[in-house]
Amino acid sequence: MMSTATLTRRPTTSRLDRLATLVTQGLDHSLPKASMAPPIIHEAMRYCVLSGGKRFRSLLTLGGCEAIGAPVRRALPVACAVELIHTYSLIHDDLPAMDNADDRRGQPACHRKFGEGNAILAGDALLTLAFELLGRTSTPNTLAIIQTLAQACGTTGLIGGQVLDLQSISQSWSSTERALQDIAQRKTAALITASVIAGALAGGATHAQVNRLKRYGERIGLAFQLIDDIHDRDGLAQLMGFETARVQAQRLIAQACNVLEGFGTRAMLLRQLANRLAATITP
Amino acid sequence: MMSTATLTRRPTTSRLDRLATLVTQGLDHSLPKASMAPPIIHEAMRYCVLSGGKRFRSLLTLGGCEAIGAPVRRALPVACAVELIHTYSLIHDDLPAMDNADDRRGQPACHRKFGEGNAILAGDALLTLAFELLGRTSTPNTLAIIQTLAQACGTTGLIGGQVLDLQSISQSWSSTERALQDIAQRKTAALITASVIAGALAGGATHAQVNRLKRYGERIGLAFQLIDDIHDRDGLAQLMGFETARVQAQRLIAQACNVLEGFGTRAMLLRQLANRLAATITP
Repeated sequence: MMSTATLTRRPTTSRLDRLATLVTQGLDHSLPKASMAPPIIHEAMRYCVLSGGKRFRSLLTLGGCEAIGAPVRRALPVACAVELIHTYSLIHDDLPAMDNADDRRGQPACHRKFGEGNAILAGDALLTLAFELLGRTSTPNTLAIIQTLAQACGTTGLIGGQVLDLQSISQSWSSTERALQDIAQRKTAALITASVIAGALAGGATHAQVNRLKRYGERIGLAFQLIDDIHDRDGLAQLMGFETARVQAQRLIAQACNVLEGFGTRAMLLRQLANRLAATITP
Repeated sequence: MMSTATLTRRPTTSRLDRLATLVTQGLDHSLPKASMAPPIIHEAMRYCVLSGGKRFRSLLTLGGCEAIGAPVRRALPVACAVELIHTYSLIHDDLPAMDNADDRRGQPACHRKFGEGNAILAGDALLTLAFELLGRTSTPNTLAIIQTLAQACGTTGLIGGQVLDLQSISQSWSSTERALQDIAQRKTAALITASVIAGALAGGATHAQVNRLKRYGERIGLAFQLIDDIHDRDGLAQLMGFETARVQAQRLIAQACNVLEGFGTRAMLLRQLANRLAATITP
């Protein structure tokens, strides 16, 4: 006979996996076919978007929608847009003029496979497709979703973080904790927070619900960056010490889960995503 | 005493100039201040957007709005978004991995002044800001405007054209007229057409009005590319011969003006823009 723990844990894991597959199917459907002219750009877009990835941000979008009591499918186009934006940012970050990364997700980076010009354009095309997809999504809050995601992508968010990151690489002295926090906030936490909020908006969230989920997103976003740094033995985690970083990440995740209390069982998905994140640093 | 020709020509010129100034003021207002952190990205964005340019596409947006009987100011945020998109495309086209251009509008190209990484990010930021601006614009047609512009920017438009252009540069054989027409359609005519339509949509255009203005935009767009090639002694104009190209550009402009007949005097601005274009190839 199976224990209760087994009974409850199995569906938990498989629901996240099923939803990740749903997002991947949505992306496959939203991306132009590889045969469409000019094929090379569509091949590059599909290569980068459909080559794995944990779909963490897009699952947060679905979770944000479910947390306010709406069916996850209502947020699917928004979740796909979030994933397109995330992939665009990875392609541009990997470019020789940026982090100059040869590999991504265990395979050659976009510019190594398709050339630098096509990689810049594939990133541009994914960002553009994200907004095209959002423009076709009719929810009462679509304009607010577009604003939220555009702001998270802009110079106060993603792009600003990458600019600061570029500067810190070119500087000979090492960055302060405060500077690294600023980069983490812009480069990681901004889009993660916006992903949750955009999902909630797609479900028809109130201002109060958005504000509470924002607090969840900010904490999960900072925890995500800390954990990334712990795994890479780099950045903030290196500066503050790995054990301190681990404790702080766990505290942030616990705080994020506390914010969810008012949402009851509807926040199950957001709780599961927080737990999945915490599990990666459990000794 | 002044002749009638002088009397009618003077206000014509100055209205286009006044509206171009209005767009530039709108852009200045929409762009983040250069002092905002991190300054380098905001300096780069402002350097590229506010360093001249004829504002042809954004004036078409205002003209499209006026043609359907709405005040031009209603389309001003959309006109600014169009100009941000156009500038992003110039910055990315000029990159070493693309056309590798050293200068733009008589000054160092963005990547020459701010470095390649910051130039890629400044382009990304302008594209993102365009959609943020559109997301803040409440017209009954904002989602349709976002779709129209995103499509014109995507792989069936701007980006697709640049991919084909990249391929034609790397090929050792010269392109056919048909291939160059395809590039012109995507790289130039698509955004020019979308600029007119987006303006009309901002004014509250009907489907029938959009379809007619689309025909105007397509002809002006192809004429624009032909004339650009005539001035550069390059591309399509070189292939078909400069005199043939000049005659065809004039024919396209005349056809575009014919489409405007049903709009009466409200299409004055679109007619003036067509005339301004024609004047650049009048012997």
